[in-house]
Amino acid sequence: MIVTAHTVRFDSLPLDNGAILGPVEIAYESYGELNAAKSNAILVLHAFSGDAHAAGPGPEDGKPGWWDNMIGPGKAFDTDRYCVICSNVLGGCRGTTGPASINPATGCPYGLTFPVITIGDMVRFQRMLVDSLGIPRLLAVTGGSMGGMQALEWAVAHPDRVVSAIPIATTARHSAQQIAFNEVGRQAIMADPNWNGGDYYGKEPPARGLAVARMVGHITYMSDHSMREKFGRRLRGKEAFGFDFEVDFEVENYLRYRGSQFVGRFDANSYLYISKAMDYFDLTGGQASLAVALQPARARFLVISFSSDWLYPSYQSQEMVRALRARNCDVAYVELQSSYGHDSFLVDVAEQSALIRGFLASTFEKLA
Amino acid sequence: MIVTAHTVRFDSLPLDNGAILGPVEIAYESYGELNAAKSNAILVLHAFSGDAHAAGPGPEDGKPGWWDNMIGPGKAFDTDRYCVICSNVLGGCRGTTGPASINPATGCPYGLTFPVITIGDMVRFQRMLVDSLGIPRLLAVTGGSMGGMQALEWAVAHPDRVVSAIPIATTARHSAQQIAFNEVGRQAIMADPNWNGGDYYGKEPPARGLAVARMVGHITYMSDHSMREKFGRRLRGKEAFGFDFEVDFEVENYLRYRGSQFVGRFDANSYLYISKAMDYFDLTGGQASLAVALQPARARFLVISFSSDWLYPSYQSQEMVRALRARNCDVAYVELQSSYGHDSFLVDVAEQSALIRGFLASTFEKLA
Repeated sequence: MIVTAHTVRFDSLPLDNGAILGPVEIAYESYGELNAAKSNAILVLHAFSGDAHAAGPGPEDGKPGWWDNMIGPGKAFDTDRYCVICSNVLGGCRGTTGPASINPATGCPYGLTFPVITIGDMVRFQRMLVDSLGIPRLLAVTGGSMGGMQALEWAVAHPDRVVSAIPIATTARHSAQQIAFNEVGRQAIMADPNWNGGDYYGKEPPARGLAVARMVGHITYMSDHSMREKFGRRLRGKEAFGFDFEVDFEVENYLRYRGSQFVGRFDANSYLYISKAMDYFDLTGGQASLAVALQPARARFLVISFSSDWLYPSYQSQEMVRALRARNCDVAYVELQSSYGHDSFLVDVAEQSALIRGFLASTFEKLA
Repeated sequence: MIVTAHTVRFDSLPLDNGAILGPVEIAYESYGELNAAKSNAILVLHAFSGDAHAAGPGPEDGKPGWWDNMIGPGKAFDTDRYCVICSNVLGGCRGTTGPASINPATGCPYGLTFPVITIGDMVRFQRMLVDSLGIPRLLAVTGGSMGGMQALEWAVAHPDRVVSAIPIATTARHSAQQIAFNEVGRQAIMADPNWNGGDYYGKEPPARGLAVARMVGHITYMSDHSMREKFGRRLRGKEAFGFDFEVDFEVENYLRYRGSQFVGRFDANSYLYISKAMDYFDLTGGQASLAVALQPARARFLVISFSSDWLYPSYQSQEMVRALRARNCDVAYVELQSSYGHDSFLVDVAEQSALIRGFLASTFEKLA
């Protein structure tokens, strides 16, 4: 599989808040080869804490990408047939312009002077990338969680550029509970004195606040069942309770580890900006109903949710599917049985792969 | 309704960790009159952040107690018939000895030198209180959430002192997910530099960390449905998004308010100690099974869970009920339909009241 990693620079990007940001850079990787007609490109959109490294060995550390079990030769997104592209989102911290980038007006990192961005802004930036690659239409746009939001946004905001969309474990808009979990993460970061109003670059970062935010996230990504299976009440390296506030249970150790590990690879301000973009996302966009808002969409849809995903529960996918059907869109919906909670789209991929493989093949055939 | 508030002092309390704590004080309130036979006493056990003020107007601020809709003349716990007693738990911060109390050995607050306590310790302390009141047997022990754990502990550890037990929205032991949410709260507190290893009395308390911990808690106490009903995506005091990190959504405002409000009435170290006691609680206590562990229990049981409670899901109550039935205990179980999540036991009390009223009446009749 051919893996290429690039960064593309643009002079300016118009934003939903009315501002124009520039210059801007977008980091992306691609896997597989674009055909002569440029009709086999699939844009994979990452979730909250993901990045452009979706598959293959990492350019720096050799670690597999976040969807390596889905992208590659013979896999769901078959790189022998398709050219898969994945870019880091606007506001991110893995190569694409975000709050840690240098503000050319000041020569210092943006910090909190970075504009509050939206899923629409992320997708507009991706479209500039796709345009620059000379790809007239994407065979598919797909992703889980926030990646699914971007896929939906593509289908509605850029309908002539999308043949099909595969939104997975996602929603047309965050519920109060989803906003609440994001807000707790933001508050944990902003409560850390090292956050310092977002101005911490070159100083001590708000590592403890960011770690707490990540711990909350991890609980919501798993299911009660999968946590019982994986940890139960097993103690960590001891036979009896310590009667102190060190780690007693395996699950405590796991959360602390995941929290501290995250700090090394993610920027706290990116956490704020990207989570805010998710909360702002509302596909209805001021229209009377979701069905009305979906009117521009021309894509074929495959919508997937997971039975144990309590963070993005199936009823949210079903709401989308009803609205798409109300517009006579070509939409297939499957709720997959899985015990892994929201993480299912990343880890429990056998059935998901079969579904997507078939959907892509039939979409590609119809094109020809 | 006669409300009395008292504090009782004891020289020493033996703890599960082997230490002896003393002197110790326990704050309690009582509602209604003890009959001549002292056979009409009901011990109400509070949840994580509760206190001894369960009913009637507060002695300081006149505010109604946390179960005021359940305790009073003609209510579920009818103070015209029963004498209801509620004490603040060991480790608490509302009148009973806890980490903010003065350590007589040093003349300073205990802070983290306070011993790590258990639900068993809390209940042993309550038994000393009940003994001091000359009450031979409690007509009922009852409470929701951590209060339910204490009711279960009473029934197993002090079976000759309990006629009936009503554990509500609770579990015989925390799952990995329940431990995980508590651990995140503890980490949020300990991440606050003002926490200072638990030594902050007379200085700035770890208010921001405690507020974050409370916000996480509040999300888990409500249901996805009740949050949608109460907040949805409604904006707070604005027509459009602010494109900043101030409050946009009502739910954000609610969480911030609840977080900051909590800081004024709760001690961060008590949060650590009490949440740890909940995580340590395991009614099986090293026995081969829950059914074996329940062998000493002699009480009648009424077990209640709520359909939308995802923090203490019904399957945990059902596990208890199966074990009690396996021991031929007299046990009734009802899963009440409610949309309020874990908070249901506090707010959605109509059916709960009817159930408890009938159960108490039949228990009292059998005694006579």
